[in-house]
Order: sequence, then C-alpha cells, then structure tokens
Amino acid sequence: MTEYKLDHMFDPDIVALAGASKSPYKWGSTILRHIVKGGYEGEIYPINPEADEILDLNAYPSVLDTPETPDLTLIATPSQAVPSVLEDCIDRGVETAVIITAGFGEAGEEGRETEKELVEMAREGGIRFAGPNCMGIFSSRADLHALMPPVRPLHGNVSFISQSGNLGVQMLDRGVHVGLGFDMFVSSGNEADLTCSDYLEYFRKKYSTDVNLAYIESIKNGRKFLDTAKRTSDEKPIVVFKSGETEAGKSAAQSHTGSMAGSKEVYDGIFRQTGAVKAGFTENMLYFGLGFNQSIPENDEVAILTRGGGWGVVAADACNKRGISVPHPPREIIEELDELLPPYWSGGNPIDTVAVQNIYIQHDIIDALKEWDVGGVIILGGLGGHFIDVAMDNGLSEEDARQYCLEHSEKIVELSEEKTVFTVAFRPYDKSEPAEYLRENGVPVYYDPQTAVLSYSKLLEYKDYLES
Amino acid sequence: MTEYKLDHMFDPDIVALAGASKSPYKWGSTILRHIVKGGYEGEIYPINPEADEILDLNAYPSVLDTPETPDLTLIATPSQAVPSVLEDCIDRGVETAVIITAGFGEAGEEGRETEKELVEMAREGGIRFAGPNCMGIFSSRADLHALMPPVRPLHGNVSFISQSGNLGVQMLDRGVHVGLGFDMFVSSGNEADLTCSDYLEYFRKKYSTDVNLAYIESIKNGRKFLDTAKRTSDEKPIVVFKSGETEAGKSAAQSHTGSMAGSKEVYDGIFRQTGAVKAGFTENMLYFGLGFNQSIPENDEVAILTRGGGWGVVAADACNKRGISVPHPPREIIEELDELLPPYWSGGNPIDTVAVQNIYIQHDIIDALKEWDVGGVIILGGLGGHFIDVAMDNGLSEEDARQYCLEHSEKIVELSEEKTVFTVAFRPYDKSEPAEYLRENGVPVYYDPQTAVLSYSKLLEYKDYLES
Repeated sequence: MTEYKLDHMFDPDIVALAGASKSPYKWGSTILRHIVKGGYEGEIYPINPEADEILDLNAYPSVLDTPETPDLTLIATPSQAVPSVLEDCIDRGVETAVIITAGFGEAGEEGRETEKELVEMAREGGIRFAGPNCMGIFSSRADLHALMPPVRPLHGNVSFISQSGNLGVQMLDRGVHVGLGFDMFVSSGNEADLTCSDYLEYFRKKYSTDVNLAYIESIKNGRKFLDTAKRTSDEKPIVVFKSGETEAGKSAAQSHTGSMAGSKEVYDGIFRQTGAVKAGFTENMLYFGLGFNQSIPENDEVAILTRGGGWGVVAADACNKRGISVPHPPREIIEELDELLPPYWSGGNPIDTVAVQNIYIQHDIIDALKEWDVGGVIILGGLGGHFIDVAMDNGLSEEDARQYCLEHSEKIVELSEEKTVFTVAFRPYDKSEPAEYLRENGVPVYYDPQTAVLSYSKLLEYKDYLES
Repeated sequence: MTEYKLDHMFDPDIVALAGASKSPYKWGSTILRHIVKGGYEGEIYPINPEADEILDLNAYPSVLDTPETPDLTLIATPSQAVPSVLEDCIDRGVETAVIITAGFGEAGEEGRETEKELVEMAREGGIRFAGPNCMGIFSSRADLHALMPPVRPLHGNVSFISQSGNLGVQMLDRGVHVGLGFDMFVSSGNEADLTCSDYLEYFRKKYSTDVNLAYIESIKNGRKFLDTAKRTSDEKPIVVFKSGETEAGKSAAQSHTGSMAGSKEVYDGIFRQTGAVKAGFTENMLYFGLGFNQSIPENDEVAILTRGGGWGVVAADACNKRGISVPHPPREIIEELDELLPPYWSGGNPIDTVAVQNIYIQHDIIDALKEWDVGGVIILGGLGGHFIDVAMDNGLSEEDARQYCLEHSEKIVELSEEKTVFTVAFRPYDKSEPAEYLRENGVPVYYDPQTAVLSYSKLLEYKDYLES
C-alpha cells in the first residue's frame, strides 16, 4: 500500500459513475445530482448502457468507451453487475473505485464469495477499491460529494473513516452545526480491499489533515492497524468510536458489515497502545475533533472563567472528575481581579464574574489571566450571539454590541496564543460572527461545560501518550 | 408549609417590582421589560421612590402606596435596601416575594447575618420568599417571565427548580431547541426561606406538572427532602442533577450559593431512596424529561427500527450497556418483514430498513411491530425534516414528501398508544411539522441513539422504584 496513492480517489480529475440513472428513484441518479450540485469541477462520466446523456452530461455505455481514463469510478449498479463493471475498470486502466452497491460480504454466503472474487480481480488488475456496501466519499479539496444522502459538510482539517455510512454522513451533517470541518471522508463499508488502516496511512501523510476520526465496528488486520495507528498518533491524533461492544451490538454489526466485532478488551488494548483517543458517544468524535485544534496544554491546571456560578460548579466538578486541577489563583491575580470585580465576586477559581452588567471588564479579566501559569483557560458564557443579546438588553446598540463581542473574541484568540483555550457558548450551534471568529481561529466553541471539559481531558490523555 | 399556597407566587394577579428602574443598565429595568414583553396580563406595579412611571406603567414609591396588595413582590433593589423593602411587603400584607438581589449568604459573614434577619422577619410577618441571589421565576400559566436573562421558554408540563440561575435559564433556553416545555421554573438561589423541598411539594400537587427537574448543589433539610421527594416520586418522576460532587465543585458551590455540598455518597443514597433519577450531564435533565412523556415500558425488551446499520449497532450496544434487551424477532414478525423488505435486510433486531428507497414500506413495518410483545420501540431516522428532504431527493414533490412524513408521524403516534416509543431524528433540533407532531403527541424526539437509549433506561429505573 505504501507505494500507492489514494490521490486518485480523493482528488480525481475525472470521475465515472457506473449505474448512473435518469430515474430519480435510483441511487445512480441521486449520487450524480449530489456530485453536480456539490460543485465538483472535474470531468464527470455517467456510465449507462441505455442513455446518451444524464443530467446534461454525456453518458457512455461503459468505462471502456469514455474519452479518457477516469481516475475514480463510483459503482452504484445492481450487485450482479458489479464484477463486470470492475473488470471493465481494470481493462480501462482505472486505478481506484468506490463500490457503493450492497449485497456482498454482509449478505450471506453467496455475497461473501462474490466479494472475495472482487478482491482477487482487483489485486490482479491493479485497482484499489472502497466498499462495497458503503455510502461514498467526500473530499473538500476536489469539492467532491460522491455521497448517497444530501449532505454538505463544512470544509476543514479533519479526515474521517466510517465503517457505517449513515452514521458517517450524520456526523458530517452534525459537523456543520457544531462547526467542525472535514478534509476527507470515506464510508469504508465492508472494507473488502482498502481498510481503515490504508485510509489512516493516507491521511497521516496528507498535510491538509490535522485530526483523524474513525468509527470502527471491526479491524481486519490488527497488526497493520497497530503499526499504522501508532505511526499516525505520533504525528496527529486519532479519535475513535468503537461499536459492537456488547452481544446485541456485535450481532447487529455482523449483519451490518459482515464483521466480527471482537472483544471489547482487545480493542481497548489496541487503542491504548496506539494512543487513539476513544469517544464514548458518537457526537463526542466531533467535540474531541474540535478540541484538537488547540495546542496541547502545558500542564493539567486550568482557570475557569464563568458568567454564572452554576456553570462554574459544573465545570469544576467535571475537571476534578477528569483529573484536571482547578487551583486557587495566586495572590497577584486575586488582587488584579479584586480591582476589576465587585466585592462579592467568587474570590477564587472558578472566577465568577457574577453577571456583572459592565461587560467591558471581561476584556481586562482575560488580560489578567495571561499572567497566571495555568496550562489552560475554560471560558463559560459571555460569548457569541447570546452575549450580543445580553449586551443589547443592557442598552448597547446592535452595532456596538456586535463590535464589543467581536473584540471579546479577538481577546480570547490572543489568549489562545499563550494557553489552551476552550469556550462554552450559551446558545447551541451559535453561528454569530463572534462565535465564528473563534472557530476560524481554532478556538473551539462548546455548548455545555461538561463536554468542553471532557474534550479538554482528551488533550491531556493524548499528551500522556506522546510523552510516554 | 402544607397550608401554604405558592399560587400567589406562580399565578399572581398583581406583581410589584421593587427596584424597578428607567436605566437600561439596571436589572430593575431588564426584568420589567421581560415581564412586559413576555405577555403577562396581570397588573404590574413598578416600585421606585423617584419615578412616576416606568415603561408606561404607573410607578409607586413603595409597596405601601400601591392601589391594591400585590400577590408577589419581586425585589431587585441594592442589597442594603432589601430588609426595608421586605418590611414594607409585610406591612402591606404581601404574601410572597422573590429576592433577586445578591450579596447575602453567599457573600461572607455580614451577608449571612442579614440573610438570617430576612428569614426571621419573613417568618414573623407571614411572607414566604424565594432567593435571595437568584435569577427569578417563570410561570407558563401566568405567562410570567420574571427573569434576568432574555429567555422565552416553551410552555409544557415540566416544572424545574434550579439552585443555579444561569444554569436554570440556560436549560429553559435549551428546552426550546430540544422541544421540552415548562410549566413553572424557579431559580431558588440561596434558599434562605423557601427550599427545594417546598417547591417540589407544590409541583407535586399541581395537575399541570407531570415531571419535576431539579439542579441541586445542596439540600438544607435532608429529612424533609427525603419525605417530600418520596411522596412526589410515587406520583410523578423527579430528575436531578447534583453538582458539587468533587473538591473543586464543592468549593465552587460554596462561593456560589454559600452552600455546603456534602458527600456524594450521602446524596446518591438520598436520590436512590427517593426514586429520583439522576442525570450525569446537565442537558440530560431535559432529555430525561422528554422521555417521561411516554408511558413506562411493560418490559425491558425493545425493538430497534433503523434507517441505517451503524445507528442500529450503536443503539443495540447502548441498550445492552443499560440493561435493555434487544431480542430476536419471533418467526411471524420475521415473515412479515421478509415480505416487506429486500432479501438482504438485517433479518433480526435491529431491523435495518437498509436505506430502502420505497419509503412507503416504513408505514407497514410500523404496523407489523404492533404485533410483537416488546415493551418499546426505538425508531432511528426516517423522520422529520431530514426525511422530507430524502423523500424529495427520491423524486417526491415537496407537498407529497411533507404529507408522507406527517402520515409517518401519525403511524408512530398510533404505535405509542400500545408501546413506549422513542424516536431519533437525523437533524438536530428538528422543528419540521412531522417532528413537531410527534412532540405534541408526547413522542420524544432525540438526536442521537445513545441519549435516546439512556433516557429510555431511566423509565425502567423509575419503574423499578415504583415496583420496589
């Protein structure tokens, strides 16, 4: 695999779609529409023996008949036709394929046999393929939305391998809400040929990928994964979600991708050895991915800055439960804060700004925190769209409120150049300008203190791995 | 307390606001605006010694000067003025007050002394009060938004006591997104007079409240809480979030509400004895609240119906981890499903409809599930706004897609008359008509399978308590 470049798959100049269709009820129509609407600027060859054009694109009876050799062929034909399409691809010199069609290894003895034959054909013919039984791929570089569902991911620096198509695209969609952008995505399906490890190795080498996510039901070659994942973790973090950990889950996984999910203990051991960070809730893959945009904290101490006492208590609890310390501020910091805050402020850490209506002191507080040698700062509230409303509620004009909140975000980004900074916005999926400014500058925005702290703890977990 | 009615507080005909202000930077202005804009239709008396009118309302120098006796006086004056305002209230015969002002028990020795004096005055004078150091109250019955922050909760059947104001109102705001409506809310502050137990007892008796939520940092009178909570749990569930469970959290709680958070073990014991269901993440208070709109399952077996394999695996895992069983379907159910689904369907539970493009079979599948004696059905995907898009993507007109999805919701509601039904929508905070139809009919809509299953397990936990 090392000599092999998946650039043909994730950055193709020419894509063919076998099984392209005029009927809107067929996946071969849906996927074609998603590619076209998604803005892919390369050449598209719909392959269909009975049509001259589909969606205003010239169609061809077979990949053997296309003007040039496609870099990638997507296969969405009925399952019986897949072997001959793959053969055509080989004959034409196509080097990569994504077999979307289902009904192979996951669907009984006959399907397993055909799947084996596909792999043998591919090995002999020099083509590598994703799938079968998958939902396609996405690539931000090529603006390629070769996906079954109507999803438009944010572009970003996270690459994602998902052994579940629907869960994968759902995470892409949630990423839009959460503010997590993707570099590449592959619904890896049954992984008959290309496996999780192959994609990981590719993402490791790509400068455009900073964080890897993986939804895993089973790993086919444990040794290879172990080596690849270790090598990868040394350079960039891997966040995994492992499913099929219980009897019911294993049995569901087997009918899903035909995989043997294996024992939870073995997998946990593999992830520990490779420094892969495990998410217990699927959504946390995204939240951990966000967190890894920040630098690794220099120590396990944090300052908590909060607009409300309750959130402070919840965050402090969460820190202690995750081995993060919430130290009392040194005297010089206390003295500075005493000057800024009313006499009844919390006097410790969490620093509770006790709903002070003079919002401008927030800026000075952030400056004061720079002097404190905690590794990180967790900022709860006083951010984004909700804070614009609060500022307006307190008499500022909309323009002034917006400007103030934007400046506040600038202050926070400045702080993040010296410390690890996580923020929690009051309003879920906040898309206001000040919140977007934070995200654009790599400061993650969470929506509850506990998820923020949990994600923060993963940076420390990864730090432990790197230092061990 | 038993003879006492909190109706004066939560359903007042006349509200006075001491500390009402014309300056937009004062809470006495903000709160007044929120009450007026919130649609409260009773009489409002702004109290301010120096103004004749505020926000077009006649203002009065003191509650002693108002045309009639207020049912409730909100107090948002500076802290030094609070004792004399409370004295005026007593002299005027006001029976309830909400002391929003901070700077008492949470703020050092002097504050604690004054707080004690307030309680003594109130006990002698026959007035009961919420707070001090709180963010106010909300009541759907009276459309009363006596709150510091600009929050407009959904109306519903959940009542909520929060010892943190900011966390409380944040949950009210999240409820809007999550689809959870509130009957009454109180930011209980320092609980100098009225405590968590008093509100709980009141909510227990109110027919309009079906579920209780409580964010608790500390309980002042353990015995009283134990009795009240037990009595309440026998009638309607209590969902609690306990903070101040670690050293950092306890210390933060003490500076927050002046409370001694006590040992985690003691509190866990109290919650276990009283059947209160504990949430580990703040947001889960809301999700558990949603779940309790469904009937308690008849057994611990569920069918999982999924539009995607991965979600099915994740849900099955989550079930097994929470003690919920995912049994294989009996032969007659398998036979019915064989007729409806393509040959490569999962053949078991989870029932994976394998992205079948003929969406109409979903209706028949739901009918088939009625015959199966599982206690509950968890439906993953194929719902709401995202499914309308999928249907349109598959060639249906917008109107047909909408109509189809609405009918699908009707089918699900029908099923919920026979079994406990939880659903998971692909798109977060889905506000489409089909999703709203589910919510209006008490079928909770979640956004990830794990939170749905966790919430489902709380119904079983509560069932165990009721049956023990």
